Amino acid sequence: MNREAQKREINQKVILIDEALSRYLPGPQVTPAAVHEAMRYSVFAGGKRLRPILFLAAAEAAGGDIAPLMPAACAIELIHTYSLIHDDLPVMDNDDYRRGKLTNHKVFGEAMAVLAGDALLTLAFGLIAECGLTGGVSPLVTAEVIREVSRAAGSQGMIGGQVVDIQSENQSIDKKTLAYIHAHKTGALFKASVRSGALMGGGTEQEIRNLTEYAENLGLAFQITDDILDVEGDSQKLGKTVGSDERKKKSTYPAIYGLENSKKSAADVVTKAISALDAFGEKADILRYIADYLLHREK
Amino acid sequence: MNREAQKREINQKVILIDEALSRYLPGPQVTPAAVHEAMRYSVFAGGKRLRPILFLAAAEAAGGDIAPLMPAACAIELIHTYSLIHDDLPVMDNDDYRRGKLTNHKVFGEAMAVLAGDALLTLAFGLIAECGLTGGVSPLVTAEVIREVSRAAGSQGMIGGQVVDIQSENQSIDKKTLAYIHAHKTGALFKASVRSGALMGGGTEQEIRNLTEYAENLGLAFQITDDILDVEGDSQKLGKTVGSDERKKKSTYPAIYGLENSKKSAADVVTKAISALDAFGEKADILRYIADYLLHREK
Repeated sequence: MNREAQKREINQKVILIDEALSRYLPGPQVTPAAVHEAMRYSVFAGGKRLRPILFLAAAEAAGGDIAPLMPAACAIELIHTYSLIHDDLPVMDNDDYRRGKLTNHKVFGEAMAVLAGDALLTLAFGLIAECGLTGGVSPLVTAEVIREVSRAAGSQGMIGGQVVDIQSENQSIDKKTLAYIHAHKTGALFKASVRSGALMGGGTEQEIRNLTEYAENLGLAFQITDDILDVEGDSQKLGKTVGSDERKKKSTYPAIYGLENSKKSAADVVTKAISALDAFGEKADILRYIADYLLHREK
Repeated sequence: MNREAQKREINQKVILIDEALSRYLPGPQVTPAAVHEAMRYSVFAGGKRLRPILFLAAAEAAGGDIAPLMPAACAIELIHTYSLIHDDLPVMDNDDYRRGKLTNHKVFGEAMAVLAGDALLTLAFGLIAECGLTGGVSPLVTAEVIREVSRAAGSQGMIGGQVVDIQSENQSIDKKTLAYIHAHKTGALFKASVRSGALMGGGTEQEIRNLTEYAENLGLAFQITDDILDVEGDSQKLGKTVGSDERKKKSTYPAIYGLENSKKSAADVVTKAISALDAFGEKADILRYIADYLLHREK
């Protein structure tokens, strides 16, 4: 598949995911309307759908059919969205804008933002369960994926990363703590997206191991490039103010390792991620494209 | 079974539930310690364990063995606890005390309270999934229970009730809105506790219908008696200030129907709840005891 074909395929997946998200989320007129409006606002606020694309692409790399997996793919996007809504709250990171739009609590108020986040997280697990109830996925694999996602999103995964990140604000932290924050706050859900897709797509143990290695390196690449963009990105393209990490005294890769070393690290981990896909042939082209895209992204 | 034996059996279940909760929650020293301390603080802050007891008693009424169901029973208590932590936040009900102890955010700060609640909700779904992974429950029934709990706790269930409750503060509401708040904010999780226990305990369709009727009436009884206690309860026993609903201008049964009518309604729905258990014989004694206990409780 050439790069143009890969790009088209990703765009098609984004459309499928957006359509499915709109189907699975209660309509904005369903009672109580306020919370459903708030949920839809953040889900359709311009996310790149990176995690559900990874989920679906991993399922295809493992030889699976993606149609019955859409509820689980969307579930992971809902978990990502809930985490952004709660992280943006005034008592947390206190952000007014995300992707160039007002954050959830700025539009709907803090109480509704807390509840909309809670509701997205709650809906997510119900959606994964649906995969095991419609005959598309074995109920046993469905239970395995729910355990995987619960751990990745929980107090020793994504939430754990946010806890340590908040505790580290306005402090200089060591490399070990920075690695912990990144591996947990972003890395854990990245890894769960890929592994869940591989599990539901029927991957062998060896395939799941390889895809896990891909995902770990990809998560690292994402976080390093995210930090680099905060230093030298274009705030128009990013939809947020550049330099906000430094102003908040957040520890980042460029701050600890320097900008050039960070760029070299990003390239290294992307190479590692792509190497882990060697055994998959063409079926993993989308996963290769995403790794390469992360390295060169501008937002 | 006489009343003393029933009471002993409930106390034994509380001990089993507390032990299991302590096993399933990460220890207070596990990294990041702050969030695990906050999670354990609220889970062990004096809850009556009513929902997991209902879950286990419904499983036994349906003829099931409760040992393999403990993770799911505890999951429901974690969901209840997370909802209390988030409801108590300053941006929501703004409560400083619950059951005579400082609320989570008063001890750990608001950011940690949001995250501890999120983590409890996330862990809960992972625990239900465990039931289907250890061989104790069929993975298909496990997926059904996850769907049931997700709906009951979600934006059209418990969270929906909290949304409408918040929107109704400082307003006089009609009987329909009061019924909506109660059926969703408290009733939905009560019903899911009983139905999930019945499903995992292997109940027949008819048994599940009967237990659902029991649960709907029990939920109503709980809410009416809760409102009555807020008017005439003993604040020492309740661990919270009496009259707080009135001060917050929350709509309640006594406010809309009067105290005497409310007491009569409570007795009526408890009678209905107990009638729904007729076909179960002695196996439903604990469920009968709980219905009777709600009517005469002092806290």
